[in-house]
Amino acid sequence: MLFARFQHGDRAAYGVLDGDVLRPIEGDLFGAHRVLDEQLRSADLRLLAPVIPRKILAAAVNYQSHVASGRSVLKGEEAPAVPQLFLKPSSSVIGPGDTIVLPEGARRVDAEGELVAVIGRDCRNVTAAEALDYVFGYTCGNDVSARHWQRDDIQWWRAKGSDTFAPIGPVIATGLDPADLKLRTRLNGDVRQSAGTSALIHSLAELISFASRVMTLEPGDLLFTGTPGETPTLAPGDVVEVEIEGIGVLRNPVSA
Amino acid sequence: MLFARFQHGDRAAYGVLDGDVLRPIEGDLFGAHRVLDEQLRSADLRLLAPVIPRKILAAAVNYQSHVASGRSVLKGEEAPAVPQLFLKPSSSVIGPGDTIVLPEGARRVDAEGELVAVIGRDCRNVTAAEALDYVFGYTCGNDVSARHWQRDDIQWWRAKGSDTFAPIGPVIATGLDPADLKLRTRLNGDVRQSAGTSALIHSLAELISFASRVMTLEPGDLLFTGTPGETPTLAPGDVVEVEIEGIGVLRNPVSA
Repeated sequence: MLFARFQHGDRAAYGVLDGDVLRPIEGDLFGAHRVLDEQLRSADLRLLAPVIPRKILAAAVNYQSHVASGRSVLKGEEAPAVPQLFLKPSSSVIGPGDTIVLPEGARRVDAEGELVAVIGRDCRNVTAAEALDYVFGYTCGNDVSARHWQRDDIQWWRAKGSDTFAPIGPVIATGLDPADLKLRTRLNGDVRQSAGTSALIHSLAELISFASRVMTLEPGDLLFTGTPGETPTLAPGDVVEVEIEGIGVLRNPVSA
Repeated sequence: MLFARFQHGDRAAYGVLDGDVLRPIEGDLFGAHRVLDEQLRSADLRLLAPVIPRKILAAAVNYQSHVASGRSVLKGEEAPAVPQLFLKPSSSVIGPGDTIVLPEGARRVDAEGELVAVIGRDCRNVTAAEALDYVFGYTCGNDVSARHWQRDDIQWWRAKGSDTFAPIGPVIATGLDPADLKLRTRLNGDVRQSAGTSALIHSLAELISFASRVMTLEPGDLLFTGTPGETPTLAPGDVVEVEIEGIGVLRNPVSA
């Protein structure tokens, strides 16, 4: 199923998207809810970021094809022996169609297309074998990154956490197998990143298990799984798209 | 005024603390609210973490007296030229009296007593001169830190973000001048950190202004301002206290 959060006039709610039709739901997306009989035409709606999370965890250098780009942060390793995670704030989240704003003084800002897991229930100290049971669904994410701040600051709080640096969407897809999904990032229509999630160094299940040993993952929390290859640099006027099979296309314009 | 979040039987709410008496409030702590006539005896209540924030920002190496301890993260500088911030997740928050749990495998875990500002309204791109207008009040914080993870991981997500690593409380004090408050951290009764907030390298107003240039600070967001001197290392059975004049004492036991 494809779950979307939408705006229709003054109303913001969740619904189930089926082709050109959206059926609103009532209740808690991560708990008890039911699909209403009401039908809205998707052309009349604006899709919103599918969730405003409490916490966003993201994996650094988690595709072998990205190790060359990520070498400067790797402290000499060829690839991370354990998952290397970091936090992004919920205030950095934007939805499909929203504008990525390049911060003043940031200089080089790159897009990073990624598969993102949406946690469905409280998760603490789980094994990799049971980790995917705690996932509600999947969305596309763009881990926008300011490279100079990433290099010069002690921590990545603004390099990865500036406003508009976490586009997600367009929907949350449930029932997918995350083990081998095709991921593509396009800049102004040109494919700039292309990989299958089977190439993740640490699988989604391993990332969840590892994180859950030290912190509680809560419903709506997001886990960005890492980006492949070389990352395209953004300029005002660009349009960046992250497409993942079974989910859809997350498209965002870029401005100064 | 001293605002507390409390548990009384099944009820969790905010109130105003005045000596041994708490008067519950109705409404939004950061918006319209009123103090009820009802009076509860503080001895009958359990105080909770005074806020569950969306975002926690914290300053690294922000007292000259902590530069020696922080040198390994400073990339050769004598002190940070610009504020060096990092994120802690809301899932790491605990309240007064709650137990700090030392994670398995973390080895050395230190306490860091800090003045914490609670943001009162949306704040974006503000000057240092106007920054304190966006602060609702102040609380004590303990920026619990796992030193080996801080040194070995690429980012501090678990070094600073493990469950129970952000004790805050006991109350939010309004109407304080944050420019020169006495801060003390005690371990099992012995004073281990002692400083005045006048010794901050980057003032609270500068931290807020700097952060607000890249990200929106929201009501309830917390800003940990940094820790002075040497930080005491925690062991199971310890009791750690952070005391700040005008706010009170944040006391937490430690367990394995």
